[in-house]
Amino acid sequence: MKNNIFETVLIIGMGLIGSSIARAIKKNKISSKIYGLDTNKNVLEKCKELDLLSDSKNNIKDFPFQFDLVIICSPLGTYKEVFASLNSFVNKFTLVTDVGSTKFCVQEDFKNYCNNKNIHFIPSHPIAGLEKSGPEYGFAELFENRYCIITPIKDKNKEYEQVKSFWQSIGMKVEYMDAEYHDRVLAMTSHIPQLIAYSIVFTANELEEKLKDEVIKYSAAGFRDFTRLAGSDPIMWRDIYSMNKDAVIEMLGRFTEDLTTLQKAIRNNDSKFLEETFVSTKKIRKAIEKLGQAGSFDPTEKEKK
Amino acid sequence: MKNNIFETVLIIGMGLIGSSIARAIKKNKISSKIYGLDTNKNVLEKCKELDLLSDSKNNIKDFPFQFDLVIICSPLGTYKEVFASLNSFVNKFTLVTDVGSTKFCVQEDFKNYCNNKNIHFIPSHPIAGLEKSGPEYGFAELFENRYCIITPIKDKNKEYEQVKSFWQSIGMKVEYMDAEYHDRVLAMTSHIPQLIAYSIVFTANELEEKLKDEVIKYSAAGFRDFTRLAGSDPIMWRDIYSMNKDAVIEMLGRFTEDLTTLQKAIRNNDSKFLEETFVSTKKIRKAIEKLGQAGSFDPTEKEKK
Repeated sequence: MKNNIFETVLIIGMGLIGSSIARAIKKNKISSKIYGLDTNKNVLEKCKELDLLSDSKNNIKDFPFQFDLVIICSPLGTYKEVFASLNSFVNKFTLVTDVGSTKFCVQEDFKNYCNNKNIHFIPSHPIAGLEKSGPEYGFAELFENRYCIITPIKDKNKEYEQVKSFWQSIGMKVEYMDAEYHDRVLAMTSHIPQLIAYSIVFTANELEEKLKDEVIKYSAAGFRDFTRLAGSDPIMWRDIYSMNKDAVIEMLGRFTEDLTTLQKAIRNNDSKFLEETFVSTKKIRKAIEKLGQAGSFDPTEKEKK
Repeated sequence: MKNNIFETVLIIGMGLIGSSIARAIKKNKISSKIYGLDTNKNVLEKCKELDLLSDSKNNIKDFPFQFDLVIICSPLGTYKEVFASLNSFVNKFTLVTDVGSTKFCVQEDFKNYCNNKNIHFIPSHPIAGLEKSGPEYGFAELFENRYCIITPIKDKNKEYEQVKSFWQSIGMKVEYMDAEYHDRVLAMTSHIPQLIAYSIVFTANELEEKLKDEVIKYSAAGFRDFTRLAGSDPIMWRDIYSMNKDAVIEMLGRFTEDLTTLQKAIRNNDSKFLEETFVSTKKIRKAIEKLGQAGSFDPTEKEKK
């Protein structure tokens, strides 16, 4: 292992993110030996067709060698098992990182299931994704110019620097954050918007058949934006809500209060309040545009001016 | 007036939609004499700079001639006044249409404020827009391949056909719908998503300063999609909620029930229910993609494949 070059990398979970990391590692020449682990044989088949990996297995025990860097890209619900298997497999210095969208629970799982001194776990959250799942949708540029948040478990030592420069080498801007604080920020920026998107599409789905058809037909009026989010991977999101329950419920409480306030204003014909609120929200949008975060994640969409 | 060609057209309200219609009329050679009316002098200044109109006024009384087609593009809250002024101004056969996002109230306003037999009002809703306001953001292609819903007040006669072919001539697909039904469909496809977007941005805006800054910084994780909607014209939306109050409150009730159900499932760790719900919402997304409605309104964004 020299500079930021890893001899061997293992990616656990070869879905959209895992396969995109494999592509990004190859593209940026970070390692020529990329291995994949996935419990789903169809996923590994697909990876073979796409020629993403040097080799792949269903079970980590089947690898006859060790790895320099392990990246966990499987759903949050699998972490306990993943940590337990790494705990018994690893027998030399190994950097382990992950891509999980909640960090406090991940760290708890690590503490509870890993006591192997060779494992150096640096929890990470590369904030990048698409509302699609499966290795066939991945691409190397998914991470470029996006943020990656590292939530340190202990003092930031050399291993933290290595993982930081790994994310930087695939194009990310890296920031450090406390795990619990990360979970609250992400509850607001990601988990609540996603839940609301699911919820409104759920509501549409329950409408009487004719009305539902019209809603789909005329979806371009705003509803469509929500369905995009609601097309995301169900298992991944199920696990996020279970792992970030407290922060999600807290933020959801705030959201519901505010929605109720707007509903009451509509009922009471309080146009002044509605107008003031709508004006104030425009400012947040402006701030996001200023920060250059108003573009799109999806390379098939053009960035907006 | 020959075929679909109008000698003179008056556009009332020269914002994003009004100015886009002016551009589309010019581009498609529907009329060479396009006049504008707006109470805001800055808006008319801007239209002059952009060379959008043959002439413009602040008050309809100042026009020394009549029009063949009048298109109302001002906020819903102004319709009473607009109908009253047309009622006293019009003295020859005139087609009048509008672009309002709610139709039942518009028709009530018409019935209450217009008794001039020369006015032939065909209520329309071209479903097209951007989260920007002002004539400088308009463009001729805004309406291409989008739906326009006409909600007939009486039997569909020749005048309906003329207005229908007007919308078609600027690229729209025209459908007829009952006004009350239109309002329920649009509550679900447009007004509720918009209100939710406002509401979540409102919630973010109330967060303590540091957390708010982080939410803006990491907005790309999903929140950003909501801020795009919440950047829309406040006056227009204020009026929509006041005009479509009943349907909005009905649909909002359904949405809140569903969101509460999801919240309860999160609290109770009911992963099975969450997963099933998230799987079912994917189907709606797929249906929208199939209908070819998954693209974007904004010509500065590329259509998604």
